[in-house]
Amino acid sequence: MTKEQALTLLSQKREAMRALDMAQSLMHWDAATLGVTEKSLAARGEATGWLGGETFRRFIAPDTLEAIETLESVSDGLTEREQAMTRNLGRQYRKAKAVPPEEMQKFESLRAQAQPVWEVAREANDFEKVQPYYEKMFDFMRRLCGWYGYQKHPYDALLDDYEKGANVETLDAFFALLREKITPLVKDIGKSGVKPREIKGQFPAAKQRELTPWLSAFMGYDLSRGKVGEVEHPFCMTINRNDVRITTKYHENDLTASLFSVIHEAGHGLYEQNMDEALENYSLADAASMGMHESQSRLFENMIGRSRPFAEILLPKLREHFDGFEDWDGETLYRAVNIARPSLIRTESDELTYCLHIIVRYELEKALLTGTAKVSDLPGLWADKYEELLGIRPPDVARGVLQDVHWSAGLVGYFPSYAVGNAYAAQIMHTMKKTVDVDAAVSRADLTPVTGWLREHIHRHGEVHEPATLIRRVTGESFNPEYYAEYLYSKFTDLYQ
Amino acid sequence: MTKEQALTLLSQKREAMRALDMAQSLMHWDAATLGVTEKSLAARGEATGWLGGETFRRFIAPDTLEAIETLESVSDGLTEREQAMTRNLGRQYRKAKAVPPEEMQKFESLRAQAQPVWEVAREANDFEKVQPYYEKMFDFMRRLCGWYGYQKHPYDALLDDYEKGANVETLDAFFALLREKITPLVKDIGKSGVKPREIKGQFPAAKQRELTPWLSAFMGYDLSRGKVGEVEHPFCMTINRNDVRITTKYHENDLTASLFSVIHEAGHGLYEQNMDEALENYSLADAASMGMHESQSRLFENMIGRSRPFAEILLPKLREHFDGFEDWDGETLYRAVNIARPSLIRTESDELTYCLHIIVRYELEKALLTGTAKVSDLPGLWADKYEELLGIRPPDVARGVLQDVHWSAGLVGYFPSYAVGNAYAAQIMHTMKKTVDVDAAVSRADLTPVTGWLREHIHRHGEVHEPATLIRRVTGESFNPEYYAEYLYSKFTDLYQ
Repeated sequence: MTKEQALTLLSQKREAMRALDMAQSLMHWDAATLGVTEKSLAARGEATGWLGGETFRRFIAPDTLEAIETLESVSDGLTEREQAMTRNLGRQYRKAKAVPPEEMQKFESLRAQAQPVWEVAREANDFEKVQPYYEKMFDFMRRLCGWYGYQKHPYDALLDDYEKGANVETLDAFFALLREKITPLVKDIGKSGVKPREIKGQFPAAKQRELTPWLSAFMGYDLSRGKVGEVEHPFCMTINRNDVRITTKYHENDLTASLFSVIHEAGHGLYEQNMDEALENYSLADAASMGMHESQSRLFENMIGRSRPFAEILLPKLREHFDGFEDWDGETLYRAVNIARPSLIRTESDELTYCLHIIVRYELEKALLTGTAKVSDLPGLWADKYEELLGIRPPDVARGVLQDVHWSAGLVGYFPSYAVGNAYAAQIMHTMKKTVDVDAAVSRADLTPVTGWLREHIHRHGEVHEPATLIRRVTGESFNPEYYAEYLYSKFTDLYQ
Repeated sequence: MTKEQALTLLSQKREAMRALDMAQSLMHWDAATLGVTEKSLAARGEATGWLGGETFRRFIAPDTLEAIETLESVSDGLTEREQAMTRNLGRQYRKAKAVPPEEMQKFESLRAQAQPVWEVAREANDFEKVQPYYEKMFDFMRRLCGWYGYQKHPYDALLDDYEKGANVETLDAFFALLREKITPLVKDIGKSGVKPREIKGQFPAAKQRELTPWLSAFMGYDLSRGKVGEVEHPFCMTINRNDVRITTKYHENDLTASLFSVIHEAGHGLYEQNMDEALENYSLADAASMGMHESQSRLFENMIGRSRPFAEILLPKLREHFDGFEDWDGETLYRAVNIARPSLIRTESDELTYCLHIIVRYELEKALLTGTAKVSDLPGLWADKYEELLGIRPPDVARGVLQDVHWSAGLVGYFPSYAVGNAYAAQIMHTMKKTVDVDAAVSRADLTPVTGWLREHIHRHGEVHEPATLIRRVTGESFNPEYYAEYLYSKFTDLYQ
């Protein structure tokens, strides 16, 4: 196979996969936004199963490897994009091929069985129901580490699936820093006696819905290349480069939930909308990593959306649409959207304590993979760690170890990327602020200097660079969680002094 | 290949095609209900192109023919369903194979080009813009008749695509009957001086939307196995057997448009929802023909929805939701929804004159295929025929020959199936009324005797029987358009006497 033949072959495969991916995305969108009738689930499951299987069959065919090896052998003669494509495909191919097909099938069927069992177990508040499934899942994950291979720690093999190049050594240091700096701060805040005013009341969904176009426009999320849907659990989904959709849910008794979810998802959406379209021709029109994607949503949600200047421009909008804000000022609103309070549920946690929820999961996953903890120990270990890190103990497993879908869905190694994303965001923001007056841009309600900077330095590059390379190119140094720890520490010390 | 191998092979292909079809249907649904951003059209077109191409490639592969021939050779050992499947697939395969691939490609690209040109031409009211595309299209169609082959008339080859077994001989007789019986009646009505009261006013979309669940429930359309969407041009679409969706559009200045479109589409929906699920395993979960599908929508829309007993139960619902019906009675409403008035646009025409619009198109298609008319003659011929049949002459081509998308979309031979559907409906209704008191069921707002009868005799059989066989099984005689002519004649004579 010549280089040209290899490129042509991959291009043909890409055309097929793009169509198959788009179809699967739309099926997912349709199910999430419209609700699928219970009775049509089976036929739909068969169809998505076939589409996913076809994508995999086309990728895993021997000619894909032949093309990859051809390009690897001429790597000097490749452009930067061709090299990145070859590196990515080679990694994906070898990881996929490392797992014996019959084991992969068993894993897929375990996932399919475990998820409904997890739902039932959570509902019934009964860990033992799902325990045998988790045992099989972690047993598979331990073997998966072996199949994938690793240099130092088995967990490294899994972490790499979500954050290329992530490893226990770096994460241990990252989380030790957070433990050291954030855990005492959380306890001090609890004792501070500071009680910010809270936003309370009923906020009609129709009124909240009116705010969304303003928010999208403020963010620079391009509605002519996307749309906003309503779902139970908000997400951002790319149908194609010019159809990047975000979603939200309007809670009538919680005004800020939808507001910040729109900002969060539009942050993801910007990344997707701003990638160079030509990257699609190299299968590189994707985020550099899960963590890098999360850095963009969190940067907008927390560092811009929960900033003083944004509170000042948000307040008049809230007054326009809702009663009850007559006697508020910007500073009160800023404090109200930044209340830090240890809580049991990760997805409802505030900016400060969020990373502590991740540490609990990181330490447990690591212990389970090395065998220093057993699945049957999870409920107790979980409660102990919450008590140690957040100072509260879940009264039951539903609000404890059973709250996340991840383990029943076979997503082990995913959680840390959320925390890494936050840390990337702080490091990126630190660099951006050297040349961009972010606060002034927010105050003017014109984020173009911010979105322009992010597009230039991050978004447009898609998956061309590994995350470690990208963060070094953008900020001039390696991943450095000090910025995040310092950001949290100073923001919340100021709020609760 | 053994019989078992052939059945297994076809079953595998079916699984793939079902997934590919479902994906394409959802893409279409998504585009129609949400509107696709202009900018994402190209990527979406590539994806649907690939999915459609893949469906075709899998079908047209030589092993499909081998399987068909294997089953044909053992036809005595096949069940009724296996026989019907073999017959259907054989017909589809040989028709698809009859067209040289390079000609098929040229045709697909002609369609893709012609449709936007037709839109522009209609907008600009300029036939010459689209004329060269129509010339190429009908040139292709004439050659297509040759490739397909035919016994008596070239048009027969195309008619069969929409209505299996339909032919010029039968349709000539059908349309001659309508010409003879309906054309004078339309003229008499024009001279009768009867002026029924008209429904006029503004009807808020939100209020109209509230009527839809009542209408769906009345129809027996199962909302737990479907949903109602809003689109520009209403349609019914099957995602899978348990997810059959209908659509409507609410016009605030036209109350009955949405009302009757919901009934019409739910009529299609009932057919789809009521097919035996097991027919999917034979690729037979489809309507017997386009005409048979249309017979179900028209039976509900016109013969039930525009009946006296329905007007009686509709009136209180209208009073509940809208002002202005205080001084109406059921008879007045019945007459208002049955106003017969020659008009220029097929899709807006009334029940009586609808079939005359079809005759115009039928005669022109036939003339173009045999070469007795040229494309350049179309505007004049169209206007002459409208004058002859409906007594009105289009003032321009936008309201004349350019009103339908069909010819630019390559749908030649489609129009007659609409009229055939109406005639089937009358013939079926005539038979059903021998054992079912339809009017009483409508008056009770309980259509179960009607829907049960239709399910038993028509819906559940899907595509097992050819339409000619099905109509004979259901009514005891061959296709007989006398029932339709008689139904129209007596209904409208009564209305306008």
